[in-house]
Amino acid sequence: MSLAIGVDVGGTKIAAGVVDEQGTIIAELRKATPANDTDKVAALISSMAKELAAEHGATSIGIGAAGFVDDARSTVIFAPNLAWRNEPLKDRVEQATGLTTVVENDANAAGWAEARFGAARGANSAVVLTIGTGIGGAIISNSQLVRGSNGFAGELGHFIIRPDGRRCGCGLRGCWERYGSGSALVTEARELSTLDPNLGARMLELADDNPLNITGLHVTQAAKEGDAAALDCYSTLGTWIGRGMAALAAVLDPDVFVLAGGVSEAGDLLREPTIKAFKKQLTARKFRPEPQVLMAQMGNKAGMIGAADLSR
Amino acid sequence: MSLAIGVDVGGTKIAAGVVDEQGTIIAELRKATPANDTDKVAALISSMAKELAAEHGATSIGIGAAGFVDDARSTVIFAPNLAWRNEPLKDRVEQATGLTTVVENDANAAGWAEARFGAARGANSAVVLTIGTGIGGAIISNSQLVRGSNGFAGELGHFIIRPDGRRCGCGLRGCWERYGSGSALVTEARELSTLDPNLGARMLELADDNPLNITGLHVTQAAKEGDAAALDCYSTLGTWIGRGMAALAAVLDPDVFVLAGGVSEAGDLLREPTIKAFKKQLTARKFRPEPQVLMAQMGNKAGMIGAADLSR
Amino acid sequence: MSLAIGVDVGGTKIAAGVVDEQGTIIAELRKATPANDTDKVAALISSMAKELAAEHGATSIGIGAAGFVDDARSTVIFAPNLAWRNEPLKDRVEQATGLTTVVENDANAAGWAEARFGAARGANSAVVLTIGTGIGGAIISNSQLVRGSNGFAGELGHFIIRPDGRRCGCGLRGCWERYGSGSALVTEARELSTLDPNLGARMLELADDNPLNITGLHVTQAAKEGDAAALDCYSTLGTWIGRGMAALAAVLDPDVFVLAGGVSEAGDLLREPTIKAFKKQLTARKFRPEPQVLMAQMGNKAGMIGAADLSR
Amino acid sequence: MSLAIGVDVGGTKIAAGVVDEQGTIIAELRKATPANDTDKVAALISSMAKELAAEHGATSIGIGAAGFVDDARSTVIFAPNLAWRNEPLKDRVEQATGLTTVVENDANAAGWAEARFGAARGANSAVVLTIGTGIGGAIISNSQLVRGSNGFAGELGHFIIRPDGRRCGCGLRGCWERYGSGSALVTEARELSTLDPNLGARMLELADDNPLNITGLHVTQAAKEGDAAALDCYSTLGTWIGRGMAALAAVLDPDVFVLAGGVSEAGDLLREPTIKAFKKQLTARKFRPEPQVLMAQMGNKAGMIGAADLSR
Repeated sequence: MSLAIGVDVGGTKIAAGVVDEQGTIIAELRKATPANDTDKVAALISSMAKELAAEHGATSIGIGAAGFVDDARSTVIFAPNLAWRNEPLKDRVEQATGLTTVVENDANAAGWAEARFGAARGANSAVVLTIGTGIGGAIISNSQLVRGSNGFAGELGHFIIRPDGRRCGCGLRGCWERYGSGSALVTEARELSTLDPNLGARMLELADDNPLNITGLHVTQAAKEGDAAALDCYSTLGTWIGRGMAALAAVLDPDVFVLAGGVSEAGDLLREPTIKAFKKQLTARKFRPEPQVLMAQMGNKAGMIGAADLSR
Repeated sequence: MSLAIGVDVGGTKIAAGVVDEQGTIIAELRKATPANDTDKVAALISSMAKELAAEHGATSIGIGAAGFVDDARSTVIFAPNLAWRNEPLKDRVEQATGLTTVVENDANAAGWAEARFGAARGANSAVVLTIGTGIGGAIISNSQLVRGSNGFAGELGHFIIRPDGRRCGCGLRGCWERYGSGSALVTEARELSTLDPNLGARMLELADDNPLNITGLHVTQAAKEGDAAALDCYSTLGTWIGRGMAALAAVLDPDVFVLAGGVSEAGDLLREPTIKAFKKQLTARKFRPEPQVLMAQMGNKAGMIGAADLSR
Repeated sequence: MSLAIGVDVGGTKIAAGVVDEQGTIIAELRKATPANDTDKVAALISSMAKELAAEHGATSIGIGAAGFVDDARSTVIFAPNLAWRNEPLKDRVEQATGLTTVVENDANAAGWAEARFGAARGANSAVVLTIGTGIGGAIISNSQLVRGSNGFAGELGHFIIRPDGRRCGCGLRGCWERYGSGSALVTEARELSTLDPNLGARMLELADDNPLNITGLHVTQAAKEGDAAALDCYSTLGTWIGRGMAALAAVLDPDVFVLAGGVSEAGDLLREPTIKAFKKQLTARKFRPEPQVLMAQMGNKAGMIGAADLSR
Repeated sequence: MSLAIGVDVGGTKIAAGVVDEQGTIIAELRKATPANDTDKVAALISSMAKELAAEHGATSIGIGAAGFVDDARSTVIFAPNLAWRNEPLKDRVEQATGLTTVVENDANAAGWAEARFGAARGANSAVVLTIGTGIGGAIISNSQLVRGSNGFAGELGHFIIRPDGRRCGCGLRGCWERYGSGSALVTEARELSTLDPNLGARMLELADDNPLNITGLHVTQAAKEGDAAALDCYSTLGTWIGRGMAALAAVLDPDVFVLAGGVSEAGDLLREPTIKAFKKQLTARKFRPEPQVLMAQMGNKAGMIGAADLSR
């Protein structure tokens, strides 16, 4: 049976695992990321992979990392959390390990895991939304990952959903992730609580009475208790997410949307307003079967599992 | 050498041709469409294909038609210009001709021709916009047509670019094609000329002084003469098209956008404002090579050629 | 008892009447407007006024006309329906008649009639919306007409309610009257019926099956019959009107809004969606008594009556 | 010569002055506001006024306070910074002092000072915008203050300039003051610096490298030094202010807009982008003389001076 190694490179730790053809993790290692030293990061990835390969016999390595990865799946052009700039990561790791290596954007890797083994299993066409601080995404079409001509496809957080809207780090205004991400949820909750402390009382209580201390967890806790203000924040968030999904449905016609990432752990708090807005703005409803909207199933190992599978 | 038959079924005529592997049309037939009689349409398509096949030896048939075609590329679920509702067109034509047949949405077929033989030749990833009365589209990814799980992918005209905007025939409001199509150009020109007849004087002159008579051709002619009002209409149109293209670039990261369809015949009148708006709203400009924006090269036979090729 | 003459100058006819202090018309004359000859228009107004004054003894003349009237209430700076450009109308009529004359914008005159004798009688502060082809308005504050420093106050149709929205004859985009007027109602109905002829079937039937023939009367008739599409058009119209009224309430805090003009004849068809949207967007609802929203009571003689009263 | 007492009641201090008919302050007193005790506030206002009146002989008292003041100018219905709820302030102070007293909203009082003695001196019609944490305003028409039927006119910060925009404390979304106030400036600067720390480097440096520490003063300082990011924030602010002013010009046709309040101290940093956007969105530019846009001249004593004058 074929085994592959998946590596998930984060800003604080690196996790590597041996993954079988069913997406099951056989063995796993974790180390702290050597910050700001790209040579050490490549060396550490390589040594972790070699150790696992020596023990389990894997024949390829897939590496998932936040950032822009080129279309040859070999060079990290830019990474927000690491010092990589045009880093030839594939070559470095292949030279050190002797194993075939591919590099992939982390949201693509995680989305691929959902498509192969998780919520979108068996779908010909799927969109996996990773909703965290921003919105990342993976698009599956014809049962393949859509990578685009530069490897930048699936930058779902950055189409403009609100002309002339909130400023975005990408240089534009009104990008989807400024309205449909965990950060947007927190912005909403802080604004509400600053402007109307009575309405936001429960969230303020959880945050030591300082609106700037409110986190996503506070909003989620209050919403789960039934607090009207927190529910309103989730409703606003879901409405924006659903609107963007409807746009993607017109373009891509997927069988299924998968909601993944930290914010998706809110479950129905998120899913219900999302589906409501999605249905409302879906084109050609009379003719098309409605895409399913499912919660991710692969958890936070999705990136490792997907990266391993993509290296096969 | 392998020959295939391409059929372009329109509301008023049916054109069929024998197409070689380089996309060259070897022979061609045209007949009037038997209106509102789906049996006769299928019979006519079949007899035209048989006639061409008998003479030239083709081994497959590709049919392009406006409307929703299922993911098996066999049934026309709904066609706006013909009486087809859940029409099993592939089966009918295969039974009558004995030749392998596929059915494809016409914008997909035309887009495929551009990807195989025209402006997007050689692209791994491309978006072809067919800008006519509405906006149709074809998406090429991994050198394949993106069809979606129901065959409805590429309904590019129907993502919402303007929340709460102009009413659309699809039941939503603010769809891209209500702002970025030939109809939108005409709406704009008529509004302008009604509201400010001095400004719209040249277009009114061309239209017998009745704003409701203004057509796209009048706008184009006036714009070519340098008329400020007509240029303004094209600028508005291009701005909306460019905005939508920027959204698609974030999602799909194509090498190339191809502007096709009747409106694209305006050439630089359309292309310049489109590119300007596109660049302005393109995310991650620092990192990505900019997609090219090219005019279509295959002309109005693109649907026939693409359909033929897709049947191989 | 004091009598005054009110003159309503339209593009096709001139109506003059003798009006008493209770706003009652004692006598009335009507003549066709001498088109495009400003000398003849001034002469005709003067002769009609003299005839009425000779018979009834009035001591002043008030003239209402569409267009921009200067703050001295004497010169028509620009009139859309007549050839007046910087026309010294007050001086001409005073010289010809020997009677004190004032000129006033027609929406101001009609609004003043509502404030003095009609729906806004007794209000310290009121806004009268004249909803016809466009939106005209009159603002009453401290029981006086608000004329502004150039006589141009109350151009209510031209604040931007929709950034980057529909083109307006005034040179901007997104003006309120492009969404909240009778023209907007017709635009909406024509669009709906073009895009979805099934939905618009009843309106099309009334308009000889040509969407471009649909008029406001057709929409109103269909709506009164309960036709869903026509009711939808009225709902859209009222929503925009209500939104704009909420903006005006924040600025002016009137006791009452009066809906006047041709479109207001639709009564509750218009009033209900208007009030719904108005309440939803009214600021400080907790603290303020809600302004009343009333239908005009003075009918199409309002301009004549108001102009007469303003001349006192 | 007639003297009047003006009292400016803030959340932390009360300032009272004797003001002559030219708006000159003859004498002045300041005391800390007795927090949360409305009886003590009324008593302190009264004693300060009596002391000044005894010494200088004033015959009336004008009190300016943040909040909603009824149309009789006697009761404070709601004050955001004090415990007043339906406080009969006029009666209390008249009983204690024996002097005729009027109560006025503070932005109205300050605006009135500009209209009588400051930047809008001599204007028949003016709008004074007090741009601080929010946007307050005063409208002058026919040389009188426009108070509305409940005393709530001039709530200029709360018309909706951005449908479905930022949440506002008043319960709506998209109110003008959420885009055109000092708070909006700070929100913009914090967002920019969080999302793009390189771009926001100078503002971050001034704020101990924490975007949440950025204040309006930091933005102003950086902008005065020529920092591009800070200038961008001011440009965004001015654009929104100018848009709102254009809406008010269509409604009110003032001779002059006066920019007052803390943010107006930025001078040309604010005025230039404001005027640019204002001109761009002003209706009927061909016909109307453009209103002037001036900076306030009365400084932070404007409220006291205006209140005094309004009591005459």
